[in-house]
Amino acid sequence: MLTLYFAPHTISLATHIVLEEVGADYAVKRIDFASAQQRSPEYLKINPKGRMPALVTDRGILTETPAMLVYVAQSFPHPHLGAALAPLDDPFLFAEIQSFNNYLCSHLHVAHAHRMRGYRWVDADDKHSIAAMQRKVPQSVGESFAMIEREMLKGPWVMGERYTVCDPYLFTLAQWLEADGVDPKTIPRVIGHRQRMAERATVKKAIAQELA
Amino acid sequence: MLTLYFAPHTISLATHIVLEEVGADYAVKRIDFASAQQRSPEYLKINPKGRMPALVTDRGILTETPAMLVYVAQSFPHPHLGAALAPLDDPFLFAEIQSFNNYLCSHLHVAHAHRMRGYRWVDADDKHSIAAMQRKVPQSVGESFAMIEREMLKGPWVMGERYTVCDPYLFTLAQWLEADGVDPKTIPRVIGHRQRMAERATVKKAIAQELA
Repeated sequence: MLTLYFAPHTISLATHIVLEEVGADYAVKRIDFASAQQRSPEYLKINPKGRMPALVTDRGILTETPAMLVYVAQSFPHPHLGAALAPLDDPFLFAEIQSFNNYLCSHLHVAHAHRMRGYRWVDADDKHSIAAMQRKVPQSVGESFAMIEREMLKGPWVMGERYTVCDPYLFTLAQWLEADGVDPKTIPRVIGHRQRMAERATVKKAIAQELA
Repeated sequence: MLTLYFAPHTISLATHIVLEEVGADYAVKRIDFASAQQRSPEYLKINPKGRMPALVTDRGILTETPAMLVYVAQSFPHPHLGAALAPLDDPFLFAEIQSFNNYLCSHLHVAHAHRMRGYRWVDADDKHSIAAMQRKVPQSVGESFAMIEREMLKGPWVMGERYTVCDPYLFTLAQWLEADGVDPKTIPRVIGHRQRMAERATVKKAIAQELA
């Protein structure tokens, strides 16, 4: 049994979708960002970093989305489900999947975070710098999506014909691109991917569960 | 045959050490940051992101350190070498390794990058914001190392008794902590780990090769 700690409209949706894709037996626990529950003593016992998401397993607690996505896929090694989402029998393809997911966590998601979490990298009361970071987000997030559009997204799925753990992760980050000031018309392939994802029953179910 | 594109004093050292650890047959190619060779048309054909490092394999080119570390380990599955560095037969341990490495790439390395690469997230000519980011680095990098010291580093190696791909990665980032303004006396276990790493023949060889 797996338990996902999540907050709506955060990166936890990526892992939530993969739990649905593999048909996992799982529970979800909502963390309320409005009351800063992610920094409560109770939640810090689950994840000392005070961030979303966290996955409670029989062997311990996991954090960091790229690690969780692969773990969930590997834990349900049905050849048409988990094993196909993060194939371990092909080290190069697996490395390509990892490389894509690492680009999302360390470049795209980081660029996005400068819009609302600038206090991580400058003093929170430095209004000039906080605003300067926010102004740069359309460009920095836009350049990351442009790189994905041009160099990475093979189509129809990120890795081509094979649907992998990259797809729910890209989809989740692509939820926020308009709010980040990126013009969707500049990245038609990313938008097409987002639309294909939105039509999957697993994605609809995960989103409905988070917003319920 | 693997070819690692590297630049001295960058995160490429982590992959370089793992290539030594597994006894790989590999070549290195130096990229000159002083002349911005990482943004030259020739290098952008290798890595369109214009970043270090890149690994040329028989099947294609890989980027992003966490992906490369696991790929190199998996490509040399001798049980005392690669397989032990990133064990695939234990999904939870593998996920813990991945989680640690993802923390390094998306939290610690990102915090560090605000000292010299602030132009990624604000306009390069905004001297106030660039300086504000630099002033925050001792705190943000210090908090990341404190989290590693307190919650993650099991000792003597990151994952405990087993030496894994986490160790060269942490060691490489720990090279820069004094320059980032972090007091080494506040993180004695990280410093002890750095010292143990520095004594390994593989680490000495990789560093000597980069500085030659």
